[in-house]
Amino acid sequence: MFKPVCRQAVRQLASINRAAIGGKRHLHAPVSFDWKDPLNVANNYTEEELAIAETAESYCQERMLPRVLDAYRKEEYDRQILTEMGELGLLGATIQGYGCAGVSSVASGLITRAVERVDSGYRSGYSVQSALAMGGIEEFGTEELKERLLPQMAKGKLLGCFGLTEPNHGSDPGSMETVAKPHPSKKGVYLLSGSKTWITNSPIADVLLVWAKLESTGKIRGFVIERDQCPPGTLETPPIKNKNGLRASITGMIQLDECPVNEANMFPEVEGLRGPFSCLNSARYGIAWGTIGALEDCISRAREYSLERKQFKGNPIAKYQLVQKKLADATTDAAYGILAAYQVGRLKDEGKAAPEMISMIKRQNCDRALINARALQEVFGGNAVSDEYGIGRHVANLFVTQTYEGQSDIHSLILGRAITGIQAFC
Amino acid sequence: MFKPVCRQAVRQLASINRAAIGGKRHLHAPVSFDWKDPLNVANNYTEEELAIAETAESYCQERMLPRVLDAYRKEEYDRQILTEMGELGLLGATIQGYGCAGVSSVASGLITRAVERVDSGYRSGYSVQSALAMGGIEEFGTEELKERLLPQMAKGKLLGCFGLTEPNHGSDPGSMETVAKPHPSKKGVYLLSGSKTWITNSPIADVLLVWAKLESTGKIRGFVIERDQCPPGTLETPPIKNKNGLRASITGMIQLDECPVNEANMFPEVEGLRGPFSCLNSARYGIAWGTIGALEDCISRAREYSLERKQFKGNPIAKYQLVQKKLADATTDAAYGILAAYQVGRLKDEGKAAPEMISMIKRQNCDRALINARALQEVFGGNAVSDEYGIGRHVANLFVTQTYEGQSDIHSLILGRAITGIQAFC
Amino acid sequence: MFKPVCRQAVRQLASINRAAIGGKRHLHAPVSFDWKDPLNVANNYTEEELAIAETAESYCQERMLPRVLDAYRKEEYDRQILTEMGELGLLGATIQGYGCAGVSSVASGLITRAVERVDSGYRSGYSVQSALAMGGIEEFGTEELKERLLPQMAKGKLLGCFGLTEPNHGSDPGSMETVAKPHPSKKGVYLLSGSKTWITNSPIADVLLVWAKLESTGKIRGFVIERDQCPPGTLETPPIKNKNGLRASITGMIQLDECPVNEANMFPEVEGLRGPFSCLNSARYGIAWGTIGALEDCISRAREYSLERKQFKGNPIAKYQLVQKKLADATTDAAYGILAAYQVGRLKDEGKAAPEMISMIKRQNCDRALINARALQEVFGGNAVSDEYGIGRHVANLFVTQTYEGQSDIHSLILGRAITGIQAFC
Amino acid sequence: MFKPVCRQAVRQLASINRAAIGGKRHLHAPVSFDWKDPLNVANNYTEEELAIAETAESYCQERMLPRVLDAYRKEEYDRQILTEMGELGLLGATIQGYGCAGVSSVASGLITRAVERVDSGYRSGYSVQSALAMGGIEEFGTEELKERLLPQMAKGKLLGCFGLTEPNHGSDPGSMETVAKPHPSKKGVYLLSGSKTWITNSPIADVLLVWAKLESTGKIRGFVIERDQCPPGTLETPPIKNKNGLRASITGMIQLDECPVNEANMFPEVEGLRGPFSCLNSARYGIAWGTIGALEDCISRAREYSLERKQFKGNPIAKYQLVQKKLADATTDAAYGILAAYQVGRLKDEGKAAPEMISMIKRQNCDRALINARALQEVFGGNAVSDEYGIGRHVANLFVTQTYEGQSDIHSLILGRAITGIQAFC
Repeated sequence: MFKPVCRQAVRQLASINRAAIGGKRHLHAPVSFDWKDPLNVANNYTEEELAIAETAESYCQERMLPRVLDAYRKEEYDRQILTEMGELGLLGATIQGYGCAGVSSVASGLITRAVERVDSGYRSGYSVQSALAMGGIEEFGTEELKERLLPQMAKGKLLGCFGLTEPNHGSDPGSMETVAKPHPSKKGVYLLSGSKTWITNSPIADVLLVWAKLESTGKIRGFVIERDQCPPGTLETPPIKNKNGLRASITGMIQLDECPVNEANMFPEVEGLRGPFSCLNSARYGIAWGTIGALEDCISRAREYSLERKQFKGNPIAKYQLVQKKLADATTDAAYGILAAYQVGRLKDEGKAAPEMISMIKRQNCDRALINARALQEVFGGNAVSDEYGIGRHVANLFVTQTYEGQSDIHSLILGRAITGIQAFC
Repeated sequence: MFKPVCRQAVRQLASINRAAIGGKRHLHAPVSFDWKDPLNVANNYTEEELAIAETAESYCQERMLPRVLDAYRKEEYDRQILTEMGELGLLGATIQGYGCAGVSSVASGLITRAVERVDSGYRSGYSVQSALAMGGIEEFGTEELKERLLPQMAKGKLLGCFGLTEPNHGSDPGSMETVAKPHPSKKGVYLLSGSKTWITNSPIADVLLVWAKLESTGKIRGFVIERDQCPPGTLETPPIKNKNGLRASITGMIQLDECPVNEANMFPEVEGLRGPFSCLNSARYGIAWGTIGALEDCISRAREYSLERKQFKGNPIAKYQLVQKKLADATTDAAYGILAAYQVGRLKDEGKAAPEMISMIKRQNCDRALINARALQEVFGGNAVSDEYGIGRHVANLFVTQTYEGQSDIHSLILGRAITGIQAFC
Repeated sequence: MFKPVCRQAVRQLASINRAAIGGKRHLHAPVSFDWKDPLNVANNYTEEELAIAETAESYCQERMLPRVLDAYRKEEYDRQILTEMGELGLLGATIQGYGCAGVSSVASGLITRAVERVDSGYRSGYSVQSALAMGGIEEFGTEELKERLLPQMAKGKLLGCFGLTEPNHGSDPGSMETVAKPHPSKKGVYLLSGSKTWITNSPIADVLLVWAKLESTGKIRGFVIERDQCPPGTLETPPIKNKNGLRASITGMIQLDECPVNEANMFPEVEGLRGPFSCLNSARYGIAWGTIGALEDCISRAREYSLERKQFKGNPIAKYQLVQKKLADATTDAAYGILAAYQVGRLKDEGKAAPEMISMIKRQNCDRALINARALQEVFGGNAVSDEYGIGRHVANLFVTQTYEGQSDIHSLILGRAITGIQAFC
Repeated sequence: MFKPVCRQAVRQLASINRAAIGGKRHLHAPVSFDWKDPLNVANNYTEEELAIAETAESYCQERMLPRVLDAYRKEEYDRQILTEMGELGLLGATIQGYGCAGVSSVASGLITRAVERVDSGYRSGYSVQSALAMGGIEEFGTEELKERLLPQMAKGKLLGCFGLTEPNHGSDPGSMETVAKPHPSKKGVYLLSGSKTWITNSPIADVLLVWAKLESTGKIRGFVIERDQCPPGTLETPPIKNKNGLRASITGMIQLDECPVNEANMFPEVEGLRGPFSCLNSARYGIAWGTIGALEDCISRAREYSLERKQFKGNPIAKYQLVQKKLADATTDAAYGILAAYQVGRLKDEGKAAPEMISMIKRQNCDRALINARALQEVFGGNAVSDEYGIGRHVANLFVTQTYEGQSDIHSLILGRAITGIQAFC
């Protein structure tokens, strides 16, 4: 039913399509406005990217969407989803080799957007696997680690998670307390102790990328913990329940009590916050795409509701100026947001994306998605309280995306520092 | 443990206290600022009002608060709450006689604020019983109905609900489809048919105040349905589950299928929308107080969190300007909101409160409570997603209060009409 | 034409009126909504206050308003205005004795609002004379100074100004550089040197209240400089021209070059920032009333324009939802703002007004007046660019009021400190 | 000093530069963030576009900027400016032939941005000449008209204006009252009567493009009036003075009293609102670029001020979180805004720009430029009132840009209609 993301097949398809539409350019016929893509960003995608987007979109709408209402109510995550995405080649899609699709950053953004159009929780699960866990291993791991783990992770057979945040150190990971010290007797083995929290996928992860301070140097290093190698009692990953949002994703802690990890599973070169921040950059880039996907779904739902809901003499409420303004505002922010994410995607592949650019699009797209989703929720009036309209779920999810991987105020100060050269974290 | 609201006792206490503090005025000692009541509105309350507020506040914090987290998670409402409030004399408190306390509108507002400081859902249950059901019967019912029902309702032994909104007519109740027609054979009996939705307390209500169009005149009339008088199959009140907010209140439908109601249970004089709108006015007045109560709880929680949470070199995040601004904004809006609600309460008791005043304070206090609660939620960063911090619950609740009993945009247009003389509902 | 503000006459009038309306209370006739006073704050005023408001309102509309357009264009201030206000007893109106009216703080707020309804620049000139200069002398001056200066100032024969802000120390007056040192030869004389800027009325002031650091102690002290006593070259007060706002007020510098001031003109007791902050508190209190007056004028102008301006099939634009929302928002904020200012006024006279309350109402009323004035300016569409509609002038003025006597962000941090107990000025 | 915009020269330069930097791509050196172009949109420009931008930028900063403060104060426009721009090849720059540069829409946007970085009034004068007058003649005029007028207009020897708006028909030009009727005796001549208002450049225009209804058909047609052909008394163009904003541009009315125009000067084919709307589309496109230019200047000024201004222990105010947030917000909106304008520019040249896209970017960029400019103005505190800081001028100008060529609310409803399919102009 769904086309796997395969470069060759797609490319052929693309060239055919391009030939077919080739002659139409520059005819300057009257141009129609598409509220789903108001600034015609699709015009900028390659045929390959369009094909990948279509694959992802179909899968998400046909297979993910039917599960989400129940998952959200019960606060359950179906890990089968990652396996299915793996089968379609959507996991770790920008990685070259190791069984990964090797697509552009824009294509990867389009996948992310398709997933979050369904639910930010599903997107979180996807981002953690692709950008944080696989991305981290690909960027910093030894060749042995990559060859052993990445192909299995790409297929969704092994699930990953990413342990950086600690209970007392949210915005300031540099103060982390998790520590790695040499095993008193076994050479080449470290013992990790400490506690991580708000870790998406941790309760079901097979591969846990955990950042800890090396006792000897005080420097932060990355460790790949393989759950099946951990002696009983050294690794616990209890789930965190009763969340206000992202209820269709699974979140938990990572509790390490002298958990042994082979030195070969430590990232050999990267030290300090550069490692985790590099991974987070990729994840944040994905969030910038994803949150606009969620907003686009809100627009679509609110638009449809406003056309169907009639009040006062049978007028659809879409006729009311106050409703139209909400739709116009949201559509504008969605269009600007996707365009900005697209631009950074292209720059990323050219090696020209500064981290502050990603702070900018992560912050802005989360904020604007949230603000507009809330405004659109008003269109539903009292009916918004019913979870069947889906928009309340997006609103609750988007608030969480605004707070994680750098709360918006933190990104404001990162940008402020980049603009003024002055640190204002006090 | 809790003092019943009894006019006489309170009044004595009040006169004693007043004497005690009498001489202090005009001493002009340095005045300290109280973030819980920044504009010292308490200075305007009578001693009786202060005593009632204290009773309500103690009950709510000590008895209600411990229940709410679990109730919200499980989407359950403990009807015992209304019985307890009845025992304290808090139900229908502004009604004179019929076993009610007969307190001022300001006192009643203070009760509402205390309840919603815990949860908007509990306040909804309370408002429906007091303002909508008891208030409606007191204002429009026959003496017989009042004497028979109000004392039982005041004690919380009989629960009421208020059925106006229909599935297809939220903002525009004048188009309601529920109809009352004369019983084909029994004189003095009407048969009611139709469907009401989003009715707080309907599944557990003993007394259902339902608005329906009289078939003969097409005019809206009020009917008091007593559940124990309804033949099987004529009245169903299925609960509506899986709500995004107000989960600690119980909400349902009212489905009437030729449900017989004695003519004596029809409000004798009031016709058209004047009846339900008068009841709604009282309820909306209460919402204006209540939502500020919820906001005040958010301020208190965010303030405490910001003082305890330390980031970046051990500074409490309360030291950050961006956090302080959120607290300053919220505190200001809470202070202004309570003052406006107070003013309208006093005018109400003087017979000088226009309905548009109530639209104004309902709209503004709901909107500002919601906006500020959302901003304060950001203070919690990623931790906000945990329901144990309580603020996510308030945010979800406050959104619902913004949409019910007149969505904010509707009240904007009511105000716009009052200002310009022109109707803009299209 | 205009009634002088005279306590006795007004009081008689008041008691008559009160008797006349006495019986009407509690009749509960249908209450109409007045967009000019949506929360019926007038219900709270005494008859005396109502009479004063009427006097001020009539004067301002009939005598001030016709001058403002030309004054603003030419950036000229007619000092005759203060003389006229003096004749009506409106200057320093809360002061008891010294030829002043001795009215309540609420009455004084009503005067301020009437003046700023015409123009914030006129109100600035009025505030400086009444609250800052006269108020400072009355609170801190010697009896000799009060008796000699206040009666002349009350009549508008002597104009005052208030010199605190320096070019390099706007938000932080504690770092001021102006210094007072003992005259090397004349005992009992200080020589003041330094520079003050953004001083309303300085170019035309006869009496300059200047704050300077005593060289010997480093403590800030207040000095009353009488222009006619200053040797040539020791006092210069050049005007500052080409302002973006407040163009109907006159603003200048105060340049002191060893300007001699008798010790008798130094405030005997007050030291440090307590002196100027006390004066500023009174002025800020007035700004809270005044800016709402300006907003009320914007509402009135936008409402009238929207009813007269017709677009699209002859509909007045007042019929558009987007226009009605702007009017509803502005009217709400104006009503809440006046009520808060009223509350603080009453507390002030009871000796219960904390400085932070005044920060709160100064900040909020300036901010909301400005935001709403800007929104209402949009109602005028392209015509807003013409100065004849008056609203652009209010917008430009209100921005300035937001920045002076404590920019809004500074007041946010003052409130933040009061709420959290933590200083965040970095 | 300034390079004329010459396609060939630029192109050569471009290819050289491109070769020079060719090898650098993909080196993935650490990328630095440029607050002047946060999303590196410059990466998307052609070398030709970059060169044109540099020419325009240099001219504007070196020649325009020194004039603007005085022009704004005196409300005077130096028509020499258009001649200078003409000499540089910047007028009507997208037009192919007729002595015009024939550059891309993106290049033209970059010119517009450079001009508005100095002043929106100068940009208005430029837009009217280039997009409205020259653009209109090029799109709809006869070949004879084009050949006769465009080369002179391109050099800035003839100035144009565009007369659509009438005193009573701002947002709704379809109701215009200006009429063209056949001359009673001279065949091939029309007599135009009516009145246009808020016409930039009208008092100094040589060529007036005026839209009027043909009496016989009631259809709107375009007429090119040449001032030197008009008999005395048939054409008056009085200036409108005392504007709140855009004071460095000249604005006036067009009063036509049986003004004779040859049929050859009537646009031969275009009828109805399609003609003026097409011209407006081009102008609005330019506004979307220009207003971001003004915002960028505000950012630059506020940043510089915040780094130089020290308060509280000598800290630059740039260190304050509340200041950094304003800078971060503004920089983000500027970056997103330029990117969106760029995207539409590219689509325009591909014939894929829908009018609603232009409504979107005109509305959003005006709104966000204005909102952020206002926030940045706060950074200047009380000093903002001095016109020498320049930011007050931008704020006043940007408000006007929000109201002209479609007030923002009108564009909201245009977008709302495109999204919902329903007209909501009432």
